[in-house]
Amino acid sequence: MMMDFYELTMANGYFKDHDKDVQVAFDVFYRQNPDEGGFAIFAGLEQVIEYVENMTFTDEDVEYFRQQHMFSEEFLTYLKNFHFKGDIYALPEGTVMYPNEPILTVVAPLIDAQLVETAILAQINHQSLIATKARRICKAAAGRAVSDFGARRAHNMDAATYGARAAYIGGVVGTATCSAGEMFGIPISGTMAHSWVMFYGDEYEAFKKYAETYPDATILLVDTYDVIHSGIPNAIRIAHEVLEPMGKRLLGIRIDSGDLAYLSKRVRKMLDEAGLSDCKIVVSNSLDEFTVSSLLTQQGACIDSFGIGERLITAKSEPVFGAVYKLAAVGENDHFAPRIKVSENVEKITNPGLKDLYRVYNENGHAVADLIAKCGEQLDDSRPLRYVDPQKPWKNRSFENCTFKNLRKCYVRQGKRTEELPKLDAIRNYVKNQLDHEIWEEEQRFENPHRHYLDMTPDYYELKMDLLTKTRRAHG
Amino acid sequence: MMMDFYELTMANGYFKDHDKDVQVAFDVFYRQNPDEGGFAIFAGLEQVIEYVENMTFTDEDVEYFRQQHMFSEEFLTYLKNFHFKGDIYALPEGTVMYPNEPILTVVAPLIDAQLVETAILAQINHQSLIATKARRICKAAAGRAVSDFGARRAHNMDAATYGARAAYIGGVVGTATCSAGEMFGIPISGTMAHSWVMFYGDEYEAFKKYAETYPDATILLVDTYDVIHSGIPNAIRIAHEVLEPMGKRLLGIRIDSGDLAYLSKRVRKMLDEAGLSDCKIVVSNSLDEFTVSSLLTQQGACIDSFGIGERLITAKSEPVFGAVYKLAAVGENDHFAPRIKVSENVEKITNPGLKDLYRVYNENGHAVADLIAKCGEQLDDSRPLRYVDPQKPWKNRSFENCTFKNLRKCYVRQGKRTEELPKLDAIRNYVKNQLDHEIWEEEQRFENPHRHYLDMTPDYYELKMDLLTKTRRAHG
Repeated sequence: MMMDFYELTMANGYFKDHDKDVQVAFDVFYRQNPDEGGFAIFAGLEQVIEYVENMTFTDEDVEYFRQQHMFSEEFLTYLKNFHFKGDIYALPEGTVMYPNEPILTVVAPLIDAQLVETAILAQINHQSLIATKARRICKAAAGRAVSDFGARRAHNMDAATYGARAAYIGGVVGTATCSAGEMFGIPISGTMAHSWVMFYGDEYEAFKKYAETYPDATILLVDTYDVIHSGIPNAIRIAHEVLEPMGKRLLGIRIDSGDLAYLSKRVRKMLDEAGLSDCKIVVSNSLDEFTVSSLLTQQGACIDSFGIGERLITAKSEPVFGAVYKLAAVGENDHFAPRIKVSENVEKITNPGLKDLYRVYNENGHAVADLIAKCGEQLDDSRPLRYVDPQKPWKNRSFENCTFKNLRKCYVRQGKRTEELPKLDAIRNYVKNQLDHEIWEEEQRFENPHRHYLDMTPDYYELKMDLLTKTRRAHG
Repeated sequence: MMMDFYELTMANGYFKDHDKDVQVAFDVFYRQNPDEGGFAIFAGLEQVIEYVENMTFTDEDVEYFRQQHMFSEEFLTYLKNFHFKGDIYALPEGTVMYPNEPILTVVAPLIDAQLVETAILAQINHQSLIATKARRICKAAAGRAVSDFGARRAHNMDAATYGARAAYIGGVVGTATCSAGEMFGIPISGTMAHSWVMFYGDEYEAFKKYAETYPDATILLVDTYDVIHSGIPNAIRIAHEVLEPMGKRLLGIRIDSGDLAYLSKRVRKMLDEAGLSDCKIVVSNSLDEFTVSSLLTQQGACIDSFGIGERLITAKSEPVFGAVYKLAAVGENDHFAPRIKVSENVEKITNPGLKDLYRVYNENGHAVADLIAKCGEQLDDSRPLRYVDPQKPWKNRSFENCTFKNLRKCYVRQGKRTEELPKLDAIRNYVKNQLDHEIWEEEQRFENPHRHYLDMTPDYYELKMDLLTKTRRAHG
């Protein structure tokens, strides 16, 4: 029932007009990278596939629709027996993606394609948003560990759980959210809240209880009363008086408030002078990629690890990932006729028809551009390949000494999955490998990143232009 | 399993130290109204109550925790039989609330209170965020209908479903999200996407099919090709050629792109001149309270109804509602000893102890202030009541001719609900009634709203100051 009601009103209309089994293709794409970044990370595919495989309407659902008094009994009976019968082509989960690319395509009977719209968009939009945000924060942390602490500020329970999954894909080392740890095997971590310290009243007593219970994993929260005058002195005593006699070391301290640059530097010095230079400093207080980057590069903060809450799990600086779902082609006899959505705004004109998406690599393995081709078009990489930059179509350009990789795979055929899906750790490594080896550093910077080229083969560009001209002529 | 792992590490520690059954009280409160508004709306209570009533750990959950190698077998056995045994006091759902007020209090055995933290916060934070945002957008719409169209941009499925519930509490008239319609009885609506028009290719043909299928509820999406030159002329033809011969009227048209002020004014004129002055204009395109307000008050747009998507369902301008969960008191023998969390920042010092929250009404029924009292403290409204404004404690002030309403109720006692919960429509009406009759207009404006007073009885203020002094003395 994760659908917009218009999907039902349209479906009932298509059913009535005997168009329900016409094959159509819908593309999912987005128009802008979040936070004015240079790319985004595709996430949520596994849940999309699970959704379409298991999608049914219960008797209660059908009865609910009957009560809306808009649908024919024949249509309601049809819903009762509905299973998704379409195909899904998509980028592998974790692929670095760019605006206006067909990241997922549904090829299905008309009603089937229409009914999965909202569920696909909600899943892809949410997880891609959080994976992309996590990647940015990890980038800012420059190799230091970043953990997801966001559940309590997530937009309800799914957002916490699937958000943690997406954050892990994007590079965090773990989460505090138990549901995500259990469902997806993400490493979980957690120590103490202020309430632990407040419950015992005496800070030293509270720390001692904790260290005795978890001597191998003692991370003490030092800001309940006063970091410098109480928290750190007590933590140092714990290290010397409780842990060292057991042959253990104090693993870390956590600061959750105050001026993190100032405090972390003072704390580092205090710990070092107490012989605790191996004790890690963990911080957590409304951080994001901008504050993390500023702390490390401009303020000289001494921080080993970050716990990131609300600004990761809600992607606070830009909490909307705007992927859309647009009709690209309609089956007519034995072929697909392309469809285009025009707009006053040139950027909003859709890319029509069935198509393939290639990534173009130079001799060093760097991704120099992406390329849209007509579906099934053969690309010959043994000689220069002409292409059109749709921003500057008058230029005559070619890829030379490049290789081409068809980025998308068929994951679902006639409603059943065709590919074994990768494990979450493999997806996470795939993200890292792309960013370490394939994607230009110039696209990864936060400020004014290089804009990745999305080019077209001459044949595809011609198809689009022809259709645009015809459509304009027909509708003024 | 909607919990942060530290709740488990602490619980295991409390269990080990035989503190698990000590009674404690935790308060939920928040520190700032979203969007610099004058108030927020409390939402999500029903789901909190359902959660604590049904909270258990499955064998798989317990096994998952065992594999973390941090917990004793005794503790794991304890979890297996865990049921929440505490009490919950809260504002009725839909109550207008203000920063630093105890909007919900858990009084429970220590472990019970700790384990429900994240689930309570995630639910209250999410639904209060969206209810408050919805209220702001409805306020800007000044009586025009506002509908939730946001599912596809929500942070996953729960966010769409519970977000629609919260938006309805906040004042929207309906949602497009079927799951929310079915689960909560919220009116649902939906007409057509651009894909409907693109599928048929010819716009007139597509409109005709729709009007013939839904002659009583024809709302046509007019911006697939060109609103002025194609969409509206075709919609007018449909009204005259298809609907009027059936004795029906064209209910509305929807514009989803372009300059809504300019288009809505031109469209209104075209419709009026065609004898369709009863045809409604619906708009939907990345709107929020600021754009809605500007369209209506500054740009003279002719709009009857708004469909609001991403900026409502993610509360885009401020997507974090920051309610926290802080220890307020610990049971000692036969009483509760208050606990306080100090901070360098005066605003972040918590309000300790068990307490009651009153709303103070003047003779006209306007809420002039809220008042924190010691739990069970008797307020005598037959004569002036002295109070302390904690921002200006040196002033000697009294409420005169005021009435006092204890805002909170006990909803759960020893893990079982004690109150029948109101229907969703009753919650929605309660919100409206408060805003129409009790809450000053000065608190409801967007720009620099009046800040509601949160005062204290002299006895409560003395308790807080005493504890603060003692705590400061003990921890430097």
